[in-house]
Amino acid sequence: MIKIVLNGCSGKMGKMITECADKFKNLEIVAGIDKFPSNAPYPIFESTKDLNIEYDVLLDFSRADALHSLLEITEKTNKPLVICSTGFTQEDLTLIDEKSSTLKLFRSGNMSFGINLINSLLKKVTPLLYGNYDIEIIEKHHNQKVDAPSGTAIMLADSIKNSIEDTTKYIYGREGNSKREENEIGIHAVRGGGIIGDHDVIFAGTGEVIELTHKAISREVFAVGALKACEYMASVSQPGLYDMSDVIGIQ
Amino acid sequence: MIKIVLNGCSGKMGKMITECADKFKNLEIVAGIDKFPSNAPYPIFESTKDLNIEYDVLLDFSRADALHSLLEITEKTNKPLVICSTGFTQEDLTLIDEKSSTLKLFRSGNMSFGINLINSLLKKVTPLLYGNYDIEIIEKHHNQKVDAPSGTAIMLADSIKNSIEDTTKYIYGREGNSKREENEIGIHAVRGGGIIGDHDVIFAGTGEVIELTHKAISREVFAVGALKACEYMASVSQPGLYDMSDVIGIQ
Amino acid sequence: MIKIVLNGCSGKMGKMITECADKFKNLEIVAGIDKFPSNAPYPIFESTKDLNIEYDVLLDFSRADALHSLLEITEKTNKPLVICSTGFTQEDLTLIDEKSSTLKLFRSGNMSFGINLINSLLKKVTPLLYGNYDIEIIEKHHNQKVDAPSGTAIMLADSIKNSIEDTTKYIYGREGNSKREENEIGIHAVRGGGIIGDHDVIFAGTGEVIELTHKAISREVFAVGALKACEYMASVSQPGLYDMSDVIGIQ
Amino acid sequence: MIKIVLNGCSGKMGKMITECADKFKNLEIVAGIDKFPSNAPYPIFESTKDLNIEYDVLLDFSRADALHSLLEITEKTNKPLVICSTGFTQEDLTLIDEKSSTLKLFRSGNMSFGINLINSLLKKVTPLLYGNYDIEIIEKHHNQKVDAPSGTAIMLADSIKNSIEDTTKYIYGREGNSKREENEIGIHAVRGGGIIGDHDVIFAGTGEVIELTHKAISREVFAVGALKACEYMASVSQPGLYDMSDVIGIQ
Repeated sequence: MIKIVLNGCSGKMGKMITECADKFKNLEIVAGIDKFPSNAPYPIFESTKDLNIEYDVLLDFSRADALHSLLEITEKTNKPLVICSTGFTQEDLTLIDEKSSTLKLFRSGNMSFGINLINSLLKKVTPLLYGNYDIEIIEKHHNQKVDAPSGTAIMLADSIKNSIEDTTKYIYGREGNSKREENEIGIHAVRGGGIIGDHDVIFAGTGEVIELTHKAISREVFAVGALKACEYMASVSQPGLYDMSDVIGIQ
Repeated sequence: MIKIVLNGCSGKMGKMITECADKFKNLEIVAGIDKFPSNAPYPIFESTKDLNIEYDVLLDFSRADALHSLLEITEKTNKPLVICSTGFTQEDLTLIDEKSSTLKLFRSGNMSFGINLINSLLKKVTPLLYGNYDIEIIEKHHNQKVDAPSGTAIMLADSIKNSIEDTTKYIYGREGNSKREENEIGIHAVRGGGIIGDHDVIFAGTGEVIELTHKAISREVFAVGALKACEYMASVSQPGLYDMSDVIGIQ
Repeated sequence: MIKIVLNGCSGKMGKMITECADKFKNLEIVAGIDKFPSNAPYPIFESTKDLNIEYDVLLDFSRADALHSLLEITEKTNKPLVICSTGFTQEDLTLIDEKSSTLKLFRSGNMSFGINLINSLLKKVTPLLYGNYDIEIIEKHHNQKVDAPSGTAIMLADSIKNSIEDTTKYIYGREGNSKREENEIGIHAVRGGGIIGDHDVIFAGTGEVIELTHKAISREVFAVGALKACEYMASVSQPGLYDMSDVIGIQ
Repeated sequence: MIKIVLNGCSGKMGKMITECADKFKNLEIVAGIDKFPSNAPYPIFESTKDLNIEYDVLLDFSRADALHSLLEITEKTNKPLVICSTGFTQEDLTLIDEKSSTLKLFRSGNMSFGINLINSLLKKVTPLLYGNYDIEIIEKHHNQKVDAPSGTAIMLADSIKNSIEDTTKYIYGREGNSKREENEIGIHAVRGGGIIGDHDVIFAGTGEVIELTHKAISREVFAVGALKACEYMASVSQPGLYDMSDVIGIQ
């Protein structure tokens, strides 16, 4: 049984992770960490400093500014740390990278298994298709989303770009009279109603269109991804910076 | 049997109309008009002036600059004129409008039955949905298309806008940090490979998404629409400016 | 302010309706009826017999067997009754029909505004398309759904069939060697994971495909539909059997 | 410059291959073989026996019964043979298999690059998803197609099944009252109008849906696939039985 401590246990995602953990027979949340109290089937500590319990994986789904205290406790316990928070600065990312030379760290910008699977596939198929197939991405989200395009769409586009060449450029919409250039990747951000999150990567050739599509049904999928990352990290023996492509098992 | 004269019979669309006409048992192409010769099962005249044959409908799928000679012959014969060419100036459109007080004229920017059906539906459903549902349009075309968004997407957006209010504004892409405003209609132009032409109108509500979608399989659909317009115009008894919504039978 | 009494207020849909009612500024739930208690911002009565409060609309989202007691109280108060429960027998349906000669009754098998809008559109467009376009329906639901195809898919297919002719027949899958017949409507029931509910009606012609699509994002959409039905019924002055096509405003 | 001889050059696909070959700068059709004459920019021989010209690859897009004469000439020339015909008996397939011990043979049931790419991806992703994701396939074809489901859908389903376990069973439609079983693969054959050929493989999980989709825009895509196979086979040095996954470069 893998013992998990959950940082950010009283937040929206924290509660969903607690709910989902019941479905995993090989892991258990033994404690939570959160400034705010909540009903939970485990003890909640106010800060990492108060934590006095043994664990196998420390799972973080809180905020970027928790990073330092999380790395501190990880250095003491030498247990894996799974970082699902977002919004890190470049400095933060560099710090995570450095610390991974001695610590078992995991970080991903999108915890859904499916998106990360598609991300892995894109690295494989893009070099086979680029040149003969035009690449376009459509993402759809609810009308309250502030940023466009979505971070996930950018992640997918970057994987495409990095698998081919640097002259590729992103186009965020089209208006007027000019033909598509070969090295464009069109990225289209649809916003409407309560759409949870769809991503569609289109490879359009002369006589055929290939699409890799992901549709989120509920935010539960991010909780499940976080717990699968914990499972994976519990089995890791070497320090390093891991991500969802390790969990999925294909690069 | 409806006798049709086809202006522009040697062009790409002219040939396709000739082919499709065989499937219509109640109409027949009795002559063509074109500067360029082509193999056709009917006589071809070089210009409207040479035409010395009786007909019921004059069908034009050529170029905007044929307008004046077409109106001239129509004034003589008093037979219906079906205009499928595009690219008219505002002056041309005004002229067509004026002449329709005495002539039986038909004009449409998109000859597909399906697109025009969807256009009619949009006028009906938009007033019922606007305010509670965000409206976005995605169109997809081949990578050689010069204009973006497509004229058809604009036609659909205009039908939406005209059925509600004038403060509606079109957004042709999104990048950066700002939330969708209520009166936006997002119009997204995807370009890739050999895609013939897809249009998807999305009404996204809090808990549901409604979509009206059109996918062109082949350019034949525009030929069929033109012949259906001829059928319809042959039955018209009053002068006026008709369009595909008359042919379809719902406004 | 329209005063609503909600029968079945402690159930899953009852709670969602209570939540959604906050967004409607012109209506208010003044009481609930349920055998089971629950936290609610209004008094809860155990049965319709205990109800001693004035109201404008009685909304029912419970079970078919509540029908008799609901009709009884409606006969006393002469207020509109909105029935969203399902699973009625043919006898129940006949009873509802009879009682509607003196009472203001509303009943629908699917409370989503969008599905009912599409249902109305199908009655309009099918006669225009049938014969030249093949009609197929794809519905997708979660893997725990017992019945196939969905009741909603049947409702849509029936609307199509009733708008044309009786020789139309439903085909629930295809295997083997035989061509599609003209009067078939293919109905395909996809089952998988947690899909909430998608319905796609396809009109496939020689050169184009038209699709009317509905995707449920959350069950909230059924709550909103129920409240809109209450709004509508509060404004009704004549007895009769109303349904969602009245609420939507197009037949 | 790769010199190709095209068996079946006067058929529908033969003509399309001839047209497409112009776009490949590194290959040239130097001769055709066909009982029937046709306009072609190369000499046409009536049978393989008459062929008296040097070539690098023999490309066959004709009929299954040409197999024996094709193998015969291939044994003489020792040049690669690309077989795109379909409808082979089990005996034929065994013969091809045997001959591949000494000859460079290629055979595939679907020549589209995209379908074969998706087929390769399915072998990779299915073992990662099966158990947590329900698998369903929707294919759409024109209303004149006799067999259902399509051979391509069967090919995709077989790749899925072979990558996991033998208890998987195919379901070709659903009607009635019974829940989906875990080891089902639903295969849905939509038939309508002039749809060229769409295939959609759905992996539906609790909180997300992943889809791999292929849409044929024109039959040209099969011509291009055949020519790419010729390119590949021209570079092969060892005898063996090759297929499109070799051409694509991922297994």
